[in-house]
Amino acid sequence: MERTIRLVVAYDGTDFAGFQFQSGHRTVQDVLEAAVAQVTGAAIRIQGAGRTDAGVHATGQVVSFPTESRLAPAELRRALNGVLPDDVAVVAARDAPPGFHARYDAVARGYRFTIWNAPELLVLGRQYAYQWRSFLDVAAMNAAARTLVGQHDFAAFAGSLRGRERPTSTLRTLFRLHCWRENERVYVDAAANAFLPRMVRNLVGVLLLVGRGQIPAEEVRTLLTSRRRLDRGITAPAHGLCLTHVWYD
Amino acid sequence: MERTIRLVVAYDGTDFAGFQFQSGHRTVQDVLEAAVAQVTGAAIRIQGAGRTDAGVHATGQVVSFPTESRLAPAELRRALNGVLPDDVAVVAARDAPPGFHARYDAVARGYRFTIWNAPELLVLGRQYAYQWRSFLDVAAMNAAARTLVGQHDFAAFAGSLRGRERPTSTLRTLFRLHCWRENERVYVDAAANAFLPRMVRNLVGVLLLVGRGQIPAEEVRTLLTSRRRLDRGITAPAHGLCLTHVWYD
Repeated sequence: MERTIRLVVAYDGTDFAGFQFQSGHRTVQDVLEAAVAQVTGAAIRIQGAGRTDAGVHATGQVVSFPTESRLAPAELRRALNGVLPDDVAVVAARDAPPGFHARYDAVARGYRFTIWNAPELLVLGRQYAYQWRSFLDVAAMNAAARTLVGQHDFAAFAGSLRGRERPTSTLRTLFRLHCWRENERVYVDAAANAFLPRMVRNLVGVLLLVGRGQIPAEEVRTLLTSRRRLDRGITAPAHGLCLTHVWYD
Repeated sequence: MERTIRLVVAYDGTDFAGFQFQSGHRTVQDVLEAAVAQVTGAAIRIQGAGRTDAGVHATGQVVSFPTESRLAPAELRRALNGVLPDDVAVVAARDAPPGFHARYDAVARGYRFTIWNAPELLVLGRQYAYQWRSFLDVAAMNAAARTLVGQHDFAAFAGSLRGRERPTSTLRTLFRLHCWRENERVYVDAAANAFLPRMVRNLVGVLLLVGRGQIPAEEVRTLLTSRRRLDRGITAPAHGLCLTHVWYD
């Protein structure tokens, strides 16, 4: 009998061309589908809650798929981890209600962007943090961040939108956008009902301009209301970003 | 006029065949010597305080070399970091007394071994920690560790010693060997006047046997006094180890 499985998945985005299937590239979806096929004996399509870009990491991606397998969730998790490469792991597995869809049923996504903000170069763990030597003004970044929280048209922060990936609306609700420092690291936490392509990286990119003193915090609200797409150069690099949580009702 | 430079160097050991020059392999020494040659215009030999194994990391390796360059230490650091690959960085640079030798003048070396001790697989940062799922008994590991501190013949903990690398004596003074837990991570900190080849990894390997309950803490002292070299299988994996500090008078 068919059932629906829901997995929490972690991956190191360094060697992936993103989450979503792309012919000729190594993607997280490919690797997960191959593992599920190997463990359950059936080729299926998995659904992921967030289509992370090439280089973006995850500690809390959620995926769902239908299966006829009778393995208990914990056994499935162990079996998948036994065949997955070491840059992907199943953190948790459970049965989901029939028809559960990791992407459509998600009510919010949370991301964390990590900045190594110190004069010393970061070597161990440099794959997981964007490096910026000069001291960032985190208070100014937060002043700017506060003007972005809420339901807005985030067209200014959307990346270039290709064909079928173009969202029908650029209205999104940003629940949280918060910057904080812990020693040499500055974190930007973002949560929204959904994000436009490149939106988190563009939000961080603009907050970095504020943190460096290149634009005043007040200008960020003007950028938002202009709804004109920002220059490509603003996008913060993928390797600093991590999908940390997906929420369901 | 010739002067001697002392650098503190950090590197990610993942893609290195160890510190020391080995024909046909990528080593830290090679990469540093190439950078120094590029910046100073002169091919010189550098000396490293610790000959870390393939895969072992460093945050506090110390190297020294003679140079005719007139660059100030801070300029030298910036110039070297400008040409070094991103898995090696110069953390600090300074002038050393004439004749200073990073290896011969070092009075102690400090290493840290990191264990990810949780049922969940570690994905982000897995290059820097050995993973062990079952709960380790850190108190037992420390009970064993205490019996090893002091000046002893550590022949039991030496790796197989090849030709010119064979130390004339296996007597070493272990100043500190301490295990501690921080959430999912267990650390083993070790400091000695010098370590025999593989000694840190063999010490950790034996402490892991104790932490897993495979041998009692009291047996470790017996292993030490036997002075019989342990099986190769005991050696803890290189990627958990990091050279953190070198001390000078």
